[in-house]
Amino acid sequence: MSKIRHLISIDDLSRQDIEYILKKADNFVEVAKGKKSLKILSGKILANLFFEPSTRTRMSFETAMKRLGGDVINLGSLEATSLAKGESLADTLRVVQQYADCIVLRHQREGSARFASQICSVPVINAGDGAGQHPTQTLLDLYTIRMEAKLKNLKIAMVGDLKYSRTVHSLIKALALFNAEIYLVSPELLKLPEEILEVDARFIESDLKTAIDEVDVLYVTRIQKERFPDEEEYRKVAGSYKITSDMIEGKDVVVMHPLPRVDEIAYDVDRLKNAVYFKQAFYGVPVRMAILSEVMS
Amino acid sequence: MSKIRHLISIDDLSRQDIEYILKKADNFVEVAKGKKSLKILSGKILANLFFEPSTRTRMSFETAMKRLGGDVINLGSLEATSLAKGESLADTLRVVQQYADCIVLRHQREGSARFASQICSVPVINAGDGAGQHPTQTLLDLYTIRMEAKLKNLKIAMVGDLKYSRTVHSLIKALALFNAEIYLVSPELLKLPEEILEVDARFIESDLKTAIDEVDVLYVTRIQKERFPDEEEYRKVAGSYKITSDMIEGKDVVVMHPLPRVDEIAYDVDRLKNAVYFKQAFYGVPVRMAILSEVMS
Amino acid sequence: MSKIRHLISIDDLSRQDIEYILKKADNFVEVAKGKKSLKILSGKILANLFFEPSTRTRMSFETAMKRLGGDVINLGSLEATSLAKGESLADTLRVVQQYADCIVLRHQREGSARFASQICSVPVINAGDGAGQHPTQTLLDLYTIRMEAKLKNLKIAMVGDLKYSRTVHSLIKALALFNAEIYLVSPELLKLPEEILEVDARFIESDLKTAIDEVDVLYVTRIQKERFPDEEEYRKVAGSYKITSDMIEGKDVVVMHPLPRVDEIAYDVDRLKNAVYFKQAFYGVPVRMAILSEVMS
Repeated sequence: MSKIRHLISIDDLSRQDIEYILKKADNFVEVAKGKKSLKILSGKILANLFFEPSTRTRMSFETAMKRLGGDVINLGSLEATSLAKGESLADTLRVVQQYADCIVLRHQREGSARFASQICSVPVINAGDGAGQHPTQTLLDLYTIRMEAKLKNLKIAMVGDLKYSRTVHSLIKALALFNAEIYLVSPELLKLPEEILEVDARFIESDLKTAIDEVDVLYVTRIQKERFPDEEEYRKVAGSYKITSDMIEGKDVVVMHPLPRVDEIAYDVDRLKNAVYFKQAFYGVPVRMAILSEVMS
Repeated sequence: MSKIRHLISIDDLSRQDIEYILKKADNFVEVAKGKKSLKILSGKILANLFFEPSTRTRMSFETAMKRLGGDVINLGSLEATSLAKGESLADTLRVVQQYADCIVLRHQREGSARFASQICSVPVINAGDGAGQHPTQTLLDLYTIRMEAKLKNLKIAMVGDLKYSRTVHSLIKALALFNAEIYLVSPELLKLPEEILEVDARFIESDLKTAIDEVDVLYVTRIQKERFPDEEEYRKVAGSYKITSDMIEGKDVVVMHPLPRVDEIAYDVDRLKNAVYFKQAFYGVPVRMAILSEVMS
Repeated sequence: MSKIRHLISIDDLSRQDIEYILKKADNFVEVAKGKKSLKILSGKILANLFFEPSTRTRMSFETAMKRLGGDVINLGSLEATSLAKGESLADTLRVVQQYADCIVLRHQREGSARFASQICSVPVINAGDGAGQHPTQTLLDLYTIRMEAKLKNLKIAMVGDLKYSRTVHSLIKALALFNAEIYLVSPELLKLPEEILEVDARFIESDLKTAIDEVDVLYVTRIQKERFPDEEEYRKVAGSYKITSDMIEGKDVVVMHPLPRVDEIAYDVDRLKNAVYFKQAFYGVPVRMAILSEVMS
């Protein structure tokens, strides 16, 4: 395994790489909770370049950096940027890297993070590039599965929008490395695309009820209204993929969600121990600490 | 006195609680000025969640946190948040608390801070909830009175908009605990509401001139144009509640204002030693340091 | 040379002052790169008050401050400020200085930074006041010239918009203190104004080709479309002041640009060692470190 310099796509990582990062994250759980001090990035500066809205990803990177003793500079609002004056993304990156030890980039253009890693002399971490990749999300999903269920011999159901969710696509590719059994639970209109089905994994088409009885993890995603021809159709479909407490209470299955949720998981699920989606958000911190310390050391 | 965990409303605090916080703030005055180092919040993260505009409150919390060695993550612009994607406030709070040791919340909905304190496992400080409370403002007002005048046997005049100013209402409730004599100086249209008059305090209706001769503190608030049926009426009224230097120069009365002011205090008052409204803004720092260190220790 | 307290205009600085700052910046180059730790501003707070958009200046000040162990509070978006509520700039400054050890101000009104320095008790650094001054830009330009060419017996060509570029005007005034020979290369419509020509420096009107053969430095600025009566005219003119790699490759001349560039320097110039404009952006960090440590010590 070679040293990780940039983190652009989950596809760049081998199973060994992933295991290495997840193991490294273990060291940071107590630090992420603020219970242990470990200022290994003291004096380092992270540049947060978010060209698209983000709350949780940006704040989670900030906390990861700051709890490790480092500091963060933010791009600020988009209208305030030099890009508004016609500057190319390449020039902005070449300037910003003069001010920082690492760049976290979210940009609407697919491939922008790869491009950034090619022109920057500091490490680049992809925090989402349009329809492309968001590898730290996939890593925190894997870490959550490892902590709250298991990565070995995993049975997981992907529920909801399997067609457009890049989060689901990336997670499936990564889970394929771990020989997971993947249940697909989605409306006809939102089935997993052919190219993802070609991944070397065991897929099982399923309904929600069967899946709940057989899997370790339900990975739920939002079904967006815009995907449907009319609202009536949407409401009917969305309702039948909604998780409620009576469906899972007492069962040995955990519920994950990349968040934000709207109503695909009922609020009364939150009180169950099956609900791990807020823990999942937390795990983003130690996982990002692992990445940041890896690329900046 | 029990340990303060959340700070939601000044009404939750006893006189003893308030005295305890003000005394605690004494320890932080030199730290707030940057003349003394006291990094007791090193490694701690404060999440600043301002769903409504704020300059001074937000910056003052940031300085309080950073001068104590801690760090801050900000929500950022509202359009950039997950709330724009339809996430509930509860979910946002449940996620953000994974990234921070304390949440400072400003939200337009009355009761939102109390709600937040009920669902969060980290301390919540209310930095204003609509028409509701803004307890750190009240505490810094009290601290200013204590430092620049006196809390015991205080005579204070509330000047201007006594009807709509939540700052005035909260301060009156708190001062009632200290047996203050409260002069009410306001236009007919903007008199103190009945329910505040029921507070156990000594109220004296007064004109501005009499008040200036008799009180220790003038607490001036802005009279807003929107409260009046026409601009002519507004101008006449506002003019007669404006403080000018000739009215107070050489007298033993200090002038406070929660800021921002527009023209209810003439600019030539600034040069007088009676003017303590910028000091008042400063006192927000040691008072917030006291709160932050209290809830996070 | 007296101690520098505020930095408002390059015109306030003597040649000795400038040499002192540039020499001081030398101490910070390794710190700016993150290769050396020097936390001399630990516990200090910088207030970044940018009333106009800025990416590089704001981020560069932030990095300068944070790499020296200090911290930064930002004004945030303009709509969120008290100014939106009708507060005067003076009041905002008088409040913000209660929270910080130094203020960096960018404001659209010419003279605003001077005004701020007169009312503030903390040091004020001008980061651009409308058509006025931006002295840290001039200092970083001088530092770049000193590092990548030479300040003594310098020959420099100012290329492009010499009429409206305040960056060029300030740099010329400063270079006059160092007896530079200044080549003026601009379209007829965008010639250097008379009042700058009165500066005590040696000016030489030149075409681009001659200048490239004779000077040490090309200082290139953007020619804006809005300056021309029609787009056809603009395109013709702009094209003839564009720097391309074949014009300078192998020659002993370096190319500077205050950035952002649009297309006045071809992208293939970037790979040449003549291109120092990204280094120039970097030098902003040690120069600003020198200023910050000077005014706050």
